[in-house]
Amino acid sequence: MREQFEVRDYDGAGRIGELQVPRADRTVETPALLPVVNPHVQTVPPKTLETTFGADILITNSYVLHGSADLREPVLKQGIHELLDFSGAIMTDSGSFQLAEYGKIDVDTEEILAFQREIGSDIGTPVDIPTPPDVSREQAAEEQARTQERLELAETVDTGEMLVSAPIQGSTHLDLREQAAREAYGTDLDLFPIGAVVPLMNEYRFADLVDVVAAAKRGLGENAPVHLFGAGHPMMFALAAAVGCDLFDSAAYALYARDGRYLTVRGTEHLEDLDYFPCECPVCREHTPAELESAGKTERHRLLAEHNLSVSFGEMRRIRQAIRRGNLFELVETRARGHPAVLDGYRTLLDYADQLEETDPVSKDAFFYLSEDSARRPAVNRHHDRLERLDVPDELWLTTGSTGDDGWRLVPPFGPVPPALSDVYPLTAELPDRLDEAAYRAAVDGVSVLAEANPDTSMTVAHDGWPETALAELPERVTVRPLGGHREE
Amino acid sequence: MREQFEVRDYDGAGRIGELQVPRADRTVETPALLPVVNPHVQTVPPKTLETTFGADILITNSYVLHGSADLREPVLKQGIHELLDFSGAIMTDSGSFQLAEYGKIDVDTEEILAFQREIGSDIGTPVDIPTPPDVSREQAAEEQARTQERLELAETVDTGEMLVSAPIQGSTHLDLREQAAREAYGTDLDLFPIGAVVPLMNEYRFADLVDVVAAAKRGLGENAPVHLFGAGHPMMFALAAAVGCDLFDSAAYALYARDGRYLTVRGTEHLEDLDYFPCECPVCREHTPAELESAGKTERHRLLAEHNLSVSFGEMRRIRQAIRRGNLFELVETRARGHPAVLDGYRTLLDYADQLEETDPVSKDAFFYLSEDSARRPAVNRHHDRLERLDVPDELWLTTGSTGDDGWRLVPPFGPVPPALSDVYPLTAELPDRLDEAAYRAAVDGVSVLAEANPDTSMTVAHDGWPETALAELPERVTVRPLGGHREE
Repeated sequence: MREQFEVRDYDGAGRIGELQVPRADRTVETPALLPVVNPHVQTVPPKTLETTFGADILITNSYVLHGSADLREPVLKQGIHELLDFSGAIMTDSGSFQLAEYGKIDVDTEEILAFQREIGSDIGTPVDIPTPPDVSREQAAEEQARTQERLELAETVDTGEMLVSAPIQGSTHLDLREQAAREAYGTDLDLFPIGAVVPLMNEYRFADLVDVVAAAKRGLGENAPVHLFGAGHPMMFALAAAVGCDLFDSAAYALYARDGRYLTVRGTEHLEDLDYFPCECPVCREHTPAELESAGKTERHRLLAEHNLSVSFGEMRRIRQAIRRGNLFELVETRARGHPAVLDGYRTLLDYADQLEETDPVSKDAFFYLSEDSARRPAVNRHHDRLERLDVPDELWLTTGSTGDDGWRLVPPFGPVPPALSDVYPLTAELPDRLDEAAYRAAVDGVSVLAEANPDTSMTVAHDGWPETALAELPERVTVRPLGGHREE
Repeated sequence: MREQFEVRDYDGAGRIGELQVPRADRTVETPALLPVVNPHVQTVPPKTLETTFGADILITNSYVLHGSADLREPVLKQGIHELLDFSGAIMTDSGSFQLAEYGKIDVDTEEILAFQREIGSDIGTPVDIPTPPDVSREQAAEEQARTQERLELAETVDTGEMLVSAPIQGSTHLDLREQAAREAYGTDLDLFPIGAVVPLMNEYRFADLVDVVAAAKRGLGENAPVHLFGAGHPMMFALAAAVGCDLFDSAAYALYARDGRYLTVRGTEHLEDLDYFPCECPVCREHTPAELESAGKTERHRLLAEHNLSVSFGEMRRIRQAIRRGNLFELVETRARGHPAVLDGYRTLLDYADQLEETDPVSKDAFFYLSEDSARRPAVNRHHDRLERLDVPDELWLTTGSTGDDGWRLVPPFGPVPPALSDVYPLTAELPDRLDEAAYRAAVDGVSVLAEANPDTSMTVAHDGWPETALAELPERVTVRPLGGHREE
């Protein structure tokens, strides 16, 4: 089962995958962005999304179509692909969002799935209960149980070739999110949206978002395609991809455009605050902010939406390229310096270094040390784990200088490096000359691991001016010697 | 004098300026990128640079034209603007680069300036001596003296309306760079290229580059437009702009393209390593790397050069926008996470916080705390300086919690914040929830400054779990109290 999703490459928990969408006869490469198309108002026509922006898949709302006086009949007659004029895969949402907004909707899971199938949707969605963040555990548990019932009900509906998504709820209760994910994965449904996280994203609570996604991932199998429902801002795509999200959808490109807001990978700008367009896209190359300000409303909205789409799709390509090259962590580090909230998200991501390490490739192209946070990356963890299992001589000389015949190199943030591993990732890391204390501390941790695993080995650390505060963490039995001008010999 | 350059906005030592180029009847807004145009081989025609990429100014080599069998007569006849078909400002280099490469050229300053004027150059350049990095002090001093002689000779040449640049040499000897700058600024020449730094940039020695530029800046007046000669890679534009460079030139866009190299703000990629184009520009949106690989050589070079130009000009717009909004440091922080060498450059830049503070605006839009390096920004320095001059009560309660009637807030990385400054930049900073130790240490430094300036004030620091290592740096007479669950009262 679950042959419809195959992972091609990993980097941390981020991955490039292929999602087979049989009804559309399409393979969608992930991470993928699904532009949200409002059936009634199309700021950018779906055809343009496909031909200009390269969208393979979009998402629209079947609940709106189901209840639309003017579109219900046309979509039933023509089908959703013809109605929208889009030949790629089309996913349909169920009205859960409206349920969350207005408290009540007038369809149920069986009816909406039947409707979705009838209009030719390629990926359908049951009516789950979107439990907001920060509710009581009782409410979250009760609503999650009801969502699970609906998923199990969805399993019984004849949906033909249409894939069906299985939203994961549980609010900000991490154990519930994990349980919800495990139960959803236990159905035969196909795709796993992480639901009701829009409030977290709107409030820039990216640390909480990472916690929630990481919890859901623990409950899912590796072959589960994960959709971050409502994840619309390119500033957090890389972070979300690194924790293992495969599908994103963006209504932001259009909603923000109508509000004069301009997306960047470092946050949101208001058009009126821009004197220059900080972007390479055709809109930004061919126009100035002043020109857009003075353009007609429709034109301005369209151009802003096109920019917002360019940067969103551009970031997806950057993420895919980073995963392929094995430098997704470096990309997330860069993004973490766009906004303090993304930094919180990144620092939280690194709390899950063990979890990320499970799928992190042993070998990549290069490790760039880019801040004190780099010292907490999974590759550092893995090296420390490996140190526990290495054979060491009775006397070991660990040095930042020349190793001689039987010494080992000492490399921040990894620590001791046996000669055999010297030319192997991540020990070929590119380091700044000006290291922070975190790098030395992590290296000292590595020495401590090695010392603990080899209580009979006599160890000397020979260093070129490492900070005393880091060296102070070494086990007492490790001898410390300054090198060079400070050599004590 | 020196009315041709006017600074409009500062951010740190970075600035937006207007350079009047009278002979071209143009005002060039800075920071500006001058694409290097090879008179013989034009990967992208100058007309396209102007109309598609918005280039206001370019640079070409008058020495090549002077010695060219086929172009010397045409350029003398038509003038450089018509020869290149470019209506913006044109700067001409003198052959100093060839002097550095081949040890000898066959023109002198008087002859080349006369030729530059004759062909209609808008900004000319004397023949300076480009002293490479790391040479002996003697050599650097002797060659700098000869460069200065040539600048003084250039002063005597009748160059009409043509602006004339005054290159600053001195190798990696910072006192010589400063002296060279002071002497160059003492002439009546117009524009100040920092010369012979290409080897530093080629070797990613961005820390040394910052040292060199900062030294030159100390010798120049604020109204001196500074050109970073040969600064071609967008990964370091923001860093160089932050230390006060106004003009950049890029041969890289074309040279790299011919070598299959693809520029990004986070470094260089080789076309063959790209599976996806990590960029929003028209070339990257309309093509895949595989398509470019299989295109004809000329087409591939042109498209790569166009991408390289897009990202270079895009980064210039980002830098200008950042200066205007007062978040250039934030942009440099982001760039520092693209490559460890840029991180070294940024950490070195912060060594000059006092120097940068001289022109840094007191008020800006927002301060984003983005890494432990943020704790060393000029705004933190300035607040600490300000603390020395504040009136404080006899008993002062500094707290991370509620201040009550007469307490002061305690805000990392700034330290004590008197109520009157609470809503004032930078004390409205956006901080991550997960602060690093550097933020607390800087705040503790602030408390220490205040305690030292007010030896008779009794101070209490009430904190919510600050790290012991930071608190340990407080003067002994400051009382420390944990807040909340740990309250000792």
